[in-house]
Amino acid sequence: MPKISKRGKQMPESPIRKLAPFSDIAKKKGLKVYHLNIGQPDIKTPEVAINAIKNIDLSILEYSPSAGYESYRKKLTQFYVDQNVAVAIEDVIITTGGSEALLFAMGSIMDPDDEIIIPEPFYANYSAFSAASGAKVVPVNSTIETGFALPPIADFEKLITPKTKAILICNPNNPTGYLYSESEILQLGTLVKKHDLFLIADEVYREFMYDGDIHYSVMNLVGLEQNVIMVDSVSKRYSMCGARIGCMVTKNKEVISAAMKFAQARLSPPTVEQIACEAAIDTPKSYFDEVISEYRGRRDTLITELNKIEGVQVTKPKGAFYCIAQLPIDNADTFAQWLLEHFEFNGETVMVAPAAGFYSTPGMGLNQVRIAYVLKKEDLIRAVQVLKEAIRVYNAL
Amino acid sequence: MPKISKRGKQMPESPIRKLAPFSDIAKKKGLKVYHLNIGQPDIKTPEVAINAIKNIDLSILEYSPSAGYESYRKKLTQFYVDQNVAVAIEDVIITTGGSEALLFAMGSIMDPDDEIIIPEPFYANYSAFSAASGAKVVPVNSTIETGFALPPIADFEKLITPKTKAILICNPNNPTGYLYSESEILQLGTLVKKHDLFLIADEVYREFMYDGDIHYSVMNLVGLEQNVIMVDSVSKRYSMCGARIGCMVTKNKEVISAAMKFAQARLSPPTVEQIACEAAIDTPKSYFDEVISEYRGRRDTLITELNKIEGVQVTKPKGAFYCIAQLPIDNADTFAQWLLEHFEFNGETVMVAPAAGFYSTPGMGLNQVRIAYVLKKEDLIRAVQVLKEAIRVYNAL
Ligand SMILES: Cc1ncc(COP(=O)(O)O)c(C=O)c1O
Ligand SMILES: Cc1ncc(COP(=O)(O)O)c(C=O)c1O
Repeated sequence: MPKISKRGKQMPESPIRKLAPFSDIAKKKGLKVYHLNIGQPDIKTPEVAINAIKNIDLSILEYSPSAGYESYRKKLTQFYVDQNVAVAIEDVIITTGGSEALLFAMGSIMDPDDEIIIPEPFYANYSAFSAASGAKVVPVNSTIETGFALPPIADFEKLITPKTKAILICNPNNPTGYLYSESEILQLGTLVKKHDLFLIADEVYREFMYDGDIHYSVMNLVGLEQNVIMVDSVSKRYSMCGARIGCMVTKNKEVISAAMKFAQARLSPPTVEQIACEAAIDTPKSYFDEVISEYRGRRDTLITELNKIEGVQVTKPKGAFYCIAQLPIDNADTFAQWLLEHFEFNGETVMVAPAAGFYSTPGMGLNQVRIAYVLKKEDLIRAVQVLKEAIRVYNAL
Repeated sequence: MPKISKRGKQMPESPIRKLAPFSDIAKKKGLKVYHLNIGQPDIKTPEVAINAIKNIDLSILEYSPSAGYESYRKKLTQFYVDQNVAVAIEDVIITTGGSEALLFAMGSIMDPDDEIIIPEPFYANYSAFSAASGAKVVPVNSTIETGFALPPIADFEKLITPKTKAILICNPNNPTGYLYSESEILQLGTLVKKHDLFLIADEVYREFMYDGDIHYSVMNLVGLEQNVIMVDSVSKRYSMCGARIGCMVTKNKEVISAAMKFAQARLSPPTVEQIACEAAIDTPKSYFDEVISEYRGRRDTLITELNKIEGVQVTKPKGAFYCIAQLPIDNADTFAQWLLEHFEFNGETVMVAPAAGFYSTPGMGLNQVRIAYVLKKEDLIRAVQVLKEAIRVYNAL
């Protein structure tokens, strides 16, 4: 039997997928499972987008241009400019989700064995995309004590080698909910300039901020136009995860032209969904106001409730819709599995994502979990009650 | 300024894209350009598919499962079984186009510097996908003299090294239109078995056959279940190129589980288009009968007309909708560019794809072009007249 690739063997599995069989066990027992583990929002997609799909006027579902429809790129560019993010149409390649934008960015700047520094904990698929590209992730630790702020620049600097090609941040952050400040982004800018590195910023949660903060995009770093690459997506912005539309943005022409070769090879991003995304740009501001206020309420509820559990450590996140909570338990992997396999409280249990999967340093985050506040407030309250009871029972085992 | 990757620099550009700026010149001059260069059919998408999009009943455009919707995978499996192709639901991963299926297949079985043998001329993006995966393409030459039949097995065997992981064929073939016979596929089967290799078959044109032949899928190779991987797509079958839906199929569980890690990392294929594809499976047989008879007519017309040009060598293709024609000119790259930049015949010109871009051996196919018969018969007749006149003028320059 022919052998699969080393890469195929070594690709990490998502920390959530590993729990899927146990979640099936809980469901088979008839338990109600509160899913605190997922990134699929329950927010409605804007009507303008759904209507654009329903009113589609095509008799041939043709390929779109490899960089995406010109009309969509234009409108998207204007969308950024309206938010004071300096982008021109030729800086934008429409991709199949933010996921593909990450793949294109990594493939365009990294060769096998090149290194990319990423503050951990980080979005677990960064490891998978790096493995797919043959690149090596070098983690720099951010800690719960600082609320997962940017690690000291000296910590980054210690990790830079001749093989380092890029630093990757996610802002606002999945899984920590941390929002990097302008000053932190500026410090990173100085660092990448000094060492001639790329700075990739995954800004797919750029609209999700709850305390009146202003998002500082890497695209606004003056003098770093050749270093920065922004990754964005409609998945969370318009609750259009299934559209698989994102973009890669950079003013570096060499990166654009390398990425275009990847884009041309895969031919084009989806046609119908792109048309829906173009329409989605007209989503009224009231939609976002409602969404943000809903998430703010959920966040406040979640943090208040979590803080009622003795021994839980958690910082109020400023953005995205996740937080990392440190629990008074020995091992979150075992605990998360036990919650699904053996625990129940009045016919209910919860599913959480063990945080170890978001760290690339072995042994980190062992007693932490990522909680997504993508449930309604009542459900969040109830879910945290179940969690509290579970911790009590688990620790008494 | 930080440097892009070697991979990004070395990724080949599509032989067609290179001509795009010259096609713009022709258009600016107001010329009518007959596009004999493209793979985008002018055939209508089945109504059942378009209607499924128009009647979409979703309020949240959610991620689908990473392997694709279970209901679609089930129906697609049945579609194959109905064609006597031995496939089970767990063998199928829905991908974002056949393109992504190729990427998943290569990533799952090849590490950087591993080798994949491909009969040339071949679909140019195979080089790009290999470069993206870090794998090395080893071409084995097929010739116009044999109508681009499978090269002798001894030719393959000579190229096999310890680094060889797979053989990749496209059947029916883009760009040659050749349809591999059952006996040729069986020979390949014996070869890969002997050397413990994978056999990837790109079968995205599997419905496009014009002489009553039966397509022999690699999935039907008995005893080779662990070696074969099939790549398929809805792009051509239903003229749904813009849907970006394909699939990777194999009975090798290790390959499926490696490919699933790539699939999970990119989260999911497009949601709306998948729903449309599920509906498309109910396309009535009459639709295909019409499409095939239309293409058969176009093929016959094209070949008849081409054979009227002195010095042109071309074989009647049995499948897909391309052929390779050898022209009585010195260099097809120069000629194709000249056609767009300097030539016109009664306000018209033609765009062809120089075949050199489909060969990976330098110097091959220099006087060959790929012609796609995706135009109506009248246009094909006219286009070949323009081509004939162009050859006369060009050779008199
Ligand atoms: C931080 C981050 N980046 C990228 C993505 C990829 O999103 P998509 O491919 O749906 O745009 C996600 C999805 O959850 C994410 O959380
Ligand atoms: C031989 C071959 N394979 C694969 C593809 C990729 O098609 P898609 O990604 O649209 O399914 C094409 C498209 O033209 C092709 O000709």
